[in-house]
Amino acid sequence: MIVLTEIKDVREHLRAERFAAAKEGRELQIGFVPTMGYLHEGHASLLRSARMDNDLVVLSIFVNPIQFGPNEDFDRYPRDSDKDMALAKREGVDIVFLPSVDEMYPQPTKTRILVSELTDHLCGATRPGHFDGVTTVVGKLLHIVAPHRAYFGQKDAQQVAVVTQMVIDLNMDVEIVPCPIVREEDGLALSSRNVYLTPEERQAALVLSRSLRQAEQMAREREGATVAHILQELVRTIESEPAASLDYAEIRSFPSLASLPGSMRAKEAEGKLLIAIAVKFGTTRLIDNVILTMEGEK
Amino acid sequence: MIVLTEIKDVREHLRAERFAAAKEGRELQIGFVPTMGYLHEGHASLLRSARMDNDLVVLSIFVNPIQFGPNEDFDRYPRDSDKDMALAKREGVDIVFLPSVDEMYPQPTKTRILVSELTDHLCGATRPGHFDGVTTVVGKLLHIVAPHRAYFGQKDAQQVAVVTQMVIDLNMDVEIVPCPIVREEDGLALSSRNVYLTPEERQAALVLSRSLRQAEQMAREREGATVAHILQELVRTIESEPAASLDYAEIRSFPSLASLPGSMRAKEAEGKLLIAIAVKFGTTRLIDNVILTMEGEK
Repeated sequence: MIVLTEIKDVREHLRAERFAAAKEGRELQIGFVPTMGYLHEGHASLLRSARMDNDLVVLSIFVNPIQFGPNEDFDRYPRDSDKDMALAKREGVDIVFLPSVDEMYPQPTKTRILVSELTDHLCGATRPGHFDGVTTVVGKLLHIVAPHRAYFGQKDAQQVAVVTQMVIDLNMDVEIVPCPIVREEDGLALSSRNVYLTPEERQAALVLSRSLRQAEQMAREREGATVAHILQELVRTIESEPAASLDYAEIRSFPSLASLPGSMRAKEAEGKLLIAIAVKFGTTRLIDNVILTMEGEK
Repeated sequence: MIVLTEIKDVREHLRAERFAAAKEGRELQIGFVPTMGYLHEGHASLLRSARMDNDLVVLSIFVNPIQFGPNEDFDRYPRDSDKDMALAKREGVDIVFLPSVDEMYPQPTKTRILVSELTDHLCGATRPGHFDGVTTVVGKLLHIVAPHRAYFGQKDAQQVAVVTQMVIDLNMDVEIVPCPIVREEDGLALSSRNVYLTPEERQAALVLSRSLRQAEQMAREREGATVAHILQELVRTIESEPAASLDYAEIRSFPSLASLPGSMRAKEAEGKLLIAIAVKFGTTRLIDNVILTMEGEK
């Protein structure tokens, strides 16, 4: 495993590897996992998928300032480089790209990649500018690494939808591979931000997965359950937890993120349904979701 | 020369060519000239530069709807595919990419690449959204062709500055090569839009290059000439032509497009000075410019 901090070194290294493979008659397949570090088993599952599908695995670790709002946690976002390196090594990463903020933004960027519509609601509504920062940095990283496949966790379902839209619209030559949410045994979705939680908040945060499981069950099993019904129950469950402060709870189609009429029965939905929530516990904002494949029963 | 209309064919063809070259131990250098067709000798000069520098030359011809405003000339933009193909063949183009609007925009794009600041003035001020359309389509085309070098005419000096900024900010792995303006013998800068001019307007349009030559001379030779001075003379000359209706005349640093104090003597300027004008003749809007390298005399 090699660790590179400069863009030109990543490019040169990958160019040489690609070229060497082509000389032997093989097209080198590169898998890329962009992260903000403080890696957990969710990231490990992305790395394992990348390792399975590709000849070479690149992991980037970069806490991207332009996707954080002025009152968000950029400064205190958790970092642990030694632990990250150990996990990367364990998962067979070939190249870790670990740029500084100066390397990625030698001057403030005048250029942004903006995805409209999909970024108007859910996390886009409460974190204005967040997704512009995400698409811009993901665009930059994809240009630097030029992978065949890039892996993203479904926990950030809106991010998956937005990045996929960007890649399609801009004809980027990469496959976006979404990977399932990884959870603790008690149901809490893994997140680098879980480290912020006090023991009491950690316990209260179980309401996320619990409320989503209930909503999923209701959507699948209760015959006449409408979108509005399910949402109402979801909100009620979350609000029954005193330490939880609801940011949003929404049901939308996936990956279009189009809104659904409240009166629609869940069972009528065709394709994928996203049930997504964002909830604050103290100062820590956590997100979770479930994606259901529906069969459009009439 | 082969003509391709589908993105996947361009990708496959170039991938095969790159791979074949690599197998032989060479890295295939690809030169790319993106155009809106109705090719003239200005385009030919771009193609010749691309031919000189690269192993393989790709020309794209695409009149990009999203860079035209609602009252602009998208519908009547001149097209002549036969003549374009003849010129492309003459200049040794290897691949012509000739996509339909549906191929480039199978659905309306939700994603845009936006460059701020540089797009606020000059043509950006009178053509709102124009450069967003340009950077978005150039980004798409660069992703499709993945060239080593892309060639742009300096006549669209702001476009060169904006595209260069995009490539730097987004870490696109391509060299933007600006090429000098090509002019008719009488000084008129070549433009596909010259075809719109009546004989009288064609004659009147000589004021563009004439006024710029004067401005250049004044900047280089008249000791105390300030930016405001030169601009005043420039505007006076253009307005002395009854058929000319001034859109803008500006002097800015290049490629930053930063404004300059009117009181600054031109000879004090360091680096490059852009003197740029846009003028309407009847319904036809033409642009022209000159870029001067100054030595910062105190």
